[in-house]
Amino acid sequence: MPETQIRFGILGCANIARKVSRAMLLSPNTTISAIGSRSLEKAIAFASENHFPESAKVYGSYDAVLDDLDVDAVYVPLPTSLHVRWAVLAAEKKKHVLLEKPVALNVGELDTILAACESSGVQFMDATMWMHHPRTVKMKEVLSDEQRFGQLKSVHSTYSFLGDEDFLKNDIRVNPNLDSLGALGDSGWYCIRAILWANNYELPNTVTAFHDPGYNESGVILSCGASLNWKTNGKVATFYCSFLSNLCMDITVLGTKGNFRVHDFIIPFSEQVGSFYAVDNSKWIELALGCAPEPSEFKIATDLPQEALMVQEFGRLVAGVRSGEVKPENKWSIVSRKTQLIIDAVVASIKNGFVPIKVIY
Amino acid sequence: MPETQIRFGILGCANIARKVSRAMLLSPNTTISAIGSRSLEKAIAFASENHFPESAKVYGSYDAVLDDLDVDAVYVPLPTSLHVRWAVLAAEKKKHVLLEKPVALNVGELDTILAACESSGVQFMDATMWMHHPRTVKMKEVLSDEQRFGQLKSVHSTYSFLGDEDFLKNDIRVNPNLDSLGALGDSGWYCIRAILWANNYELPNTVTAFHDPGYNESGVILSCGASLNWKTNGKVATFYCSFLSNLCMDITVLGTKGNFRVHDFIIPFSEQVGSFYAVDNSKWIELALGCAPEPSEFKIATDLPQEALMVQEFGRLVAGVRSGEVKPENKWSIVSRKTQLIIDAVVASIKNGFVPIKVIY
Repeated sequence: MPETQIRFGILGCANIARKVSRAMLLSPNTTISAIGSRSLEKAIAFASENHFPESAKVYGSYDAVLDDLDVDAVYVPLPTSLHVRWAVLAAEKKKHVLLEKPVALNVGELDTILAACESSGVQFMDATMWMHHPRTVKMKEVLSDEQRFGQLKSVHSTYSFLGDEDFLKNDIRVNPNLDSLGALGDSGWYCIRAILWANNYELPNTVTAFHDPGYNESGVILSCGASLNWKTNGKVATFYCSFLSNLCMDITVLGTKGNFRVHDFIIPFSEQVGSFYAVDNSKWIELALGCAPEPSEFKIATDLPQEALMVQEFGRLVAGVRSGEVKPENKWSIVSRKTQLIIDAVVASIKNGFVPIKVIY
Repeated sequence: MPETQIRFGILGCANIARKVSRAMLLSPNTTISAIGSRSLEKAIAFASENHFPESAKVYGSYDAVLDDLDVDAVYVPLPTSLHVRWAVLAAEKKKHVLLEKPVALNVGELDTILAACESSGVQFMDATMWMHHPRTVKMKEVLSDEQRFGQLKSVHSTYSFLGDEDFLKNDIRVNPNLDSLGALGDSGWYCIRAILWANNYELPNTVTAFHDPGYNESGVILSCGASLNWKTNGKVATFYCSFLSNLCMDITVLGTKGNFRVHDFIIPFSEQVGSFYAVDNSKWIELALGCAPEPSEFKIATDLPQEALMVQEFGRLVAGVRSGEVKPENKWSIVSRKTQLIIDAVVASIKNGFVPIKVIY
């Protein structure tokens, strides 16, 4: 018997939804059942341009998608300020929720969303694509290897890209009414997730924002950073996120015995293969005239792009819940909530004069 | 007429002096004229093992080197706590001073050294070798290219290596009476210099140490970091230095239009060639399924190792002063002093509970 495909409904015609629509069609266990936009015309055009199946329904509202019995799960790429409303409504309609990042404006909103999902017994996942690349699994293997990596000591993560004039004027990510977290919510989300991922999701004790973030005229953050501290083992992490610098998507992780670097962790330069660079047990050569070994490149191929692997994993979890055999996997709620907690701590540190903010789950 | 070689005297038999002795013999405009150690036996063995010319004199004291009229310049690789005494004495004896880093325990001591050098009209330079690699010149070209780099926005620098049991117990760099600045003075020096170098030596407004540095039982720093802020243009920099993580020698510099990374900036993996990786005007491809271009590797060959280029440049400056045609070049005093000022600010930030410290030249 062929596996039943999970049928997605999509709320809105955001640009990112084009990429995720393609992923839903690439993933063998998912399909697209409906899309809704406030503009029916836009929804029709979007469905056509993105090769939706003929069976897909096109609506002039988000509500219609939530009311469609042929929709198992919704993908929510709406502006962050609308997440709590539509994710909660979706959960109440028993739709599983794949939610774009940043998942909420603050952890209070996220808790409302998570409570609705739990109450309805639906699966929640945030749309952090790089988590699902096989390279990420391989890097975690390196991190976990006592001989090649040892104990984790520090992480530095950067995500910057240069927003052009139109982006910096009109994009929802710089609009205080739509995505008031700005670069912190958009770019910083990935950096913070990378730091938590490297730390096996152990929360830091404190988060301290760097002085003098960049802001636009509306007070939305365009660039910022912070340091994170763990009392155990003297671990430290730092990140920097920005809409004002040329593209950089780095994680550098240092352990006692080894380290690794990745330069395109969020979106690999190539869809087919992702690289990272690792080295361990480095030594100075005689007279410290050089050092060896040099870092080695590891190339990890993937049949499906990372966003299709994300959709596939979400579909797998949803299928399990629908079968009645398992409960929703709560891993994704927990890592979303921890990521959001750090974002909230950075905001609080900035608002309170760059003081350290204690992080409590 | 062949150029007269500058004749070095070396104070002490530090391990690093082996590498720099070799450099003095490799550089065409320098030679070794004398070495002094508190132990004559050690000095004799050092001179033999490091292929000193037969004419080189070997002394059982540092004073004898300073009194030797055949010595034009001294190289001072003594523990930092001894720098102020011996560098000042050397300057008073009209010897030019090549001083190992960290140059002093604090900027007050350094000012005493610099005043002595200025008063005697001798050349001062700190022994920060990577500054003299042709790769560093090439990276500065990239940084200064408006089309390929744009405006500088952030720098992150790391220098860590894993001290073994013997190092962490016995090395002078973890001894509170010899090198009380620990990893900050040794490893952090390079990171701070890299940040200043990328910023054309513009001092930051404030320096804020990260919480919870690592210490040994004597209270010497084994790992720490800080963020640096410039009010102009929202520039930020961070560094992390450590004796407790596997070797990492990174600079990542982000500009509006481009960025570059180097992974072995302090001691290149290879003596013959140094690499760095630069990219500019990065763009997402259609649907943001990837990004292009990928960073390119730039390989910069060098005939002489960077420490020989350093010694050669020092020799060139000393020759100019000796000829009576030019005064000592004060660039190196200024960059040493700025580096030391940041080190002092990190120390002050740590001592005062990780508050921001204003930096004033």
